[in-house]
Amino acid sequence: MQFTAQQIASLLNGTVEGNPEAAVSTLAKIEEAGEGSLSFLANPKYEQYLYTTNASIVIVNNTQVLSGAVKSTLIRVEDAYSAFSVLLDAYNTIRLDKSGIEQPSFIHPTAQVGENVYIGAFAYIGPGAKVGDKCKIYPNSYVGDNATLGNNVTLFAGVKVYFDCVLGNNVIVHSGAVIGSDGFGFAPSADGTYKKIAQIGNVILEEDVEVGSNTTIDRATMGSTIIRKGAKIDNLVQIAHNVEVGTDTVIAGQTGISGSTKIGNNVMIAGQVGIAGHLTIANKTQLSAKTGINSSIKTEGQAWGGTPYMPYKDYLRAHAKLKQLPELDKKVYELEKIIKELKNG
Amino acid sequence: MQFTAQQIASLLNGTVEGNPEAAVSTLAKIEEAGEGSLSFLANPKYEQYLYTTNASIVIVNNTQVLSGAVKSTLIRVEDAYSAFSVLLDAYNTIRLDKSGIEQPSFIHPTAQVGENVYIGAFAYIGPGAKVGDKCKIYPNSYVGDNATLGNNVTLFAGVKVYFDCVLGNNVIVHSGAVIGSDGFGFAPSADGTYKKIAQIGNVILEEDVEVGSNTTIDRATMGSTIIRKGAKIDNLVQIAHNVEVGTDTVIAGQTGISGSTKIGNNVMIAGQVGIAGHLTIANKTQLSAKTGINSSIKTEGQAWGGTPYMPYKDYLRAHAKLKQLPELDKKVYELEKIIKELKNG
Amino acid sequence: MQFTAQQIASLLNGTVEGNPEAAVSTLAKIEEAGEGSLSFLANPKYEQYLYTTNASIVIVNNTQVLSGAVKSTLIRVEDAYSAFSVLLDAYNTIRLDKSGIEQPSFIHPTAQVGENVYIGAFAYIGPGAKVGDKCKIYPNSYVGDNATLGNNVTLFAGVKVYFDCVLGNNVIVHSGAVIGSDGFGFAPSADGTYKKIAQIGNVILEEDVEVGSNTTIDRATMGSTIIRKGAKIDNLVQIAHNVEVGTDTVIAGQTGISGSTKIGNNVMIAGQVGIAGHLTIANKTQLSAKTGINSSIKTEGQAWGGTPYMPYKDYLRAHAKLKQLPELDKKVYELEKIIKELKNG
Repeated sequence: MQFTAQQIASLLNGTVEGNPEAAVSTLAKIEEAGEGSLSFLANPKYEQYLYTTNASIVIVNNTQVLSGAVKSTLIRVEDAYSAFSVLLDAYNTIRLDKSGIEQPSFIHPTAQVGENVYIGAFAYIGPGAKVGDKCKIYPNSYVGDNATLGNNVTLFAGVKVYFDCVLGNNVIVHSGAVIGSDGFGFAPSADGTYKKIAQIGNVILEEDVEVGSNTTIDRATMGSTIIRKGAKIDNLVQIAHNVEVGTDTVIAGQTGISGSTKIGNNVMIAGQVGIAGHLTIANKTQLSAKTGINSSIKTEGQAWGGTPYMPYKDYLRAHAKLKQLPELDKKVYELEKIIKELKNG
Repeated sequence: MQFTAQQIASLLNGTVEGNPEAAVSTLAKIEEAGEGSLSFLANPKYEQYLYTTNASIVIVNNTQVLSGAVKSTLIRVEDAYSAFSVLLDAYNTIRLDKSGIEQPSFIHPTAQVGENVYIGAFAYIGPGAKVGDKCKIYPNSYVGDNATLGNNVTLFAGVKVYFDCVLGNNVIVHSGAVIGSDGFGFAPSADGTYKKIAQIGNVILEEDVEVGSNTTIDRATMGSTIIRKGAKIDNLVQIAHNVEVGTDTVIAGQTGISGSTKIGNNVMIAGQVGIAGHLTIANKTQLSAKTGINSSIKTEGQAWGGTPYMPYKDYLRAHAKLKQLPELDKKVYELEKIIKELKNG
Repeated sequence: MQFTAQQIASLLNGTVEGNPEAAVSTLAKIEEAGEGSLSFLANPKYEQYLYTTNASIVIVNNTQVLSGAVKSTLIRVEDAYSAFSVLLDAYNTIRLDKSGIEQPSFIHPTAQVGENVYIGAFAYIGPGAKVGDKCKIYPNSYVGDNATLGNNVTLFAGVKVYFDCVLGNNVIVHSGAVIGSDGFGFAPSADGTYKKIAQIGNVILEEDVEVGSNTTIDRATMGSTIIRKGAKIDNLVQIAHNVEVGTDTVIAGQTGISGSTKIGNNVMIAGQVGIAGHLTIANKTQLSAKTGINSSIKTEGQAWGGTPYMPYKDYLRAHAKLKQLPELDKKVYELEKIIKELKNG
């Protein structure tokens, strides 16, 4: 699909400077853009690229002053960054537009499927499952018995939703993520073996939650593991049984949260963090990468780091000194000798 | 499915106190239970909830004394916790009861499939594979060429078992787990490139092993990667080629074990632990979360923590002091000054 | 399939010592080999096993001197290790030899599929996708719209390749790996919610790249996430959007690399390493297990460890002292007391 500078300018209420027939078929960063690309300039730091870019069209602010020759056709708008975002979303919506039911797919006779859905080949909708309107279920995905998907839910290829789980409107789940596998619950026996504890709860993903690829969210032993509205979870994250993640909390890749822990709202958790079980993490807490949390955090809005964790500033100061620990040790040894001499002297 | 208090009491040899027709269709914790739920009270700490719960039925010990009014119908039994466990397992068994072969599925003509199995749509049973009696192969799962599954094995949706792997009776594998991918083996060449070393071994999961969702267990280069009887492995765990995990060992989420390491029996490994290759870990070892193991552990039954690891108690003591390292550093600096003065004084 | 010592010796230009009709059907390590196995002896450290092994055939160097009785038939060759490698590769090639298109599979009418391919049941080749010659697409794999696979690419069961991604010749991707899921990009709004930033780029895996099971590689926001020629990536690794991994770099299990970071060539990254975003890592850098990198590494060929990271030798020295930190602390406390006495004395 190609668009001309004139067409795009009309859409954005902008004015064309250069060839109104310049055509583009993709979007790119100004420093990487090739011919046929549309780019934008908003941050003055990148102005240099305006004079060297191969982009066919560049969106700039109305106020942009040119200090050199520009090869690209320009579209001037009020706010170049916003205008570009609008195009980015439009481009993405077109690209992800899919509908219809591919064959072979499996929709159990007792399942309910809404309108304007996409169901890819080899997707499975189990007995009693409900799939809302405008859902997109990509190939090889699995919606287990009695699972419920709201409207406009996207399951990319190979997502697995176990029985009884509930996904709210606009939820997006990326490939390979598993929603609702059994919690890791085993009762030790006297002979050293373990007896499995049945995991009969479910997982609830509220509206606007996004789950990254190959992330795993276990069902509750009883009750529900809950991810609240708007929370965003990256790839390869482990969420154990009966955990609760608050609204608009973001969790980066490879973080793990142990059973029954409650994470507050607007918490920011970096990558590879580990949080022990049965804890409470206050709203707006910030955890830096690789932090290990072994007790509850009660005060809101604080930043933490290290394993075991400490205030983020202390963590930076302490670890900066850690490297010199052998020298410190040696110094103390020398001091001990001197003092012995002084005392004996 | 609904059950009355009378029916449940008969099953448990209990006595009904209240409405024998009170009906329930699910199980819940006493503090979360709603109408239509069955709950239990065993731990005196939770007794308060007995007087406020909305559970329709609560199982209590014969010896339970009531100190207030109870809305729920009670069922009195010898041991409330055990009785509830029996119901939990029964409930779970009913819910997971599946049989028959859904279409379309793929069973190669040379594969052998036992009796009373469930094979979901889009499941694949490869050439020469053997699937025992009462196995449940959920949709989109893959059993590679000549792989062997004992009796009563459950592969949840999207499990992948590579060729030649062997799963014992009662093994449970959760969605997205991969059994038998190639070990990470490459021989460096003089020009800096790597040549793949063929990985021709397999993986053996012995009886009663459970593997969590999206866990990966690599096949041996030659011989077998072995998970011994009764071991339980959580989600997103990485088990490298030629590793051996002992009987009744438990491994929590996101732990990684490098190639050829042998883990003993009844070992307890917490989350995000890393264990280097070619090591031996003694029986009954306990590793706390995020521990990094870079040498063999010979003494049985010890607890360890930290990276590199140290005895768990030392780890707690050392890391408690770590935060004050900058102050300690400053103190030593001050002492040096004073001593200089004393010496010169 | 069985081969006799005579047949194998002919293949390897070796000479048989013992029964030329001794037959084998598998390959094994000399210390583990049973009857019907072929093994080899190259490392003198293992010579003892030559006299005890149950291998039916053992390949040895021409120069091997026997110091005891050997049950196995020997094949003498110039270089036993190389000869065995040749057989290992041949064995593996035969075992992984698959071709043809199993049914049901899904190949969109607009997709292009090369010659001599294997396409397993329930594999999905989307609209506009291109699959080169001799590719093997195992069951339940997904090749999204307009994705391109070169020649001789292997996708094991359940691999997911999102739309527009490009895989070069000879790429191998193991089960459950996800290529091209959305980068973790969200713009914070004033009300604390997050707005998804469309991820319209792709992933490029150049020639000879291997990707482990359940690894996730996110597509670029714009442009490409790139894994350069010959790089090898283990299981459960997270590669974020716009990352670039250099040629012949190896990355072990459960490592995570944050957005827009550029990893050089011939870098060696151990397991569970974390690298923050927008950094540059110099060629031939070596990172030990669990290292946390929070700033760029400019000098080539250095080894690092710890979180935050420091030179590997410093890391080992500092952490060796860490355990004694409480004792050091106590010593300083004692010194302070003595000095006070000395000063006052």
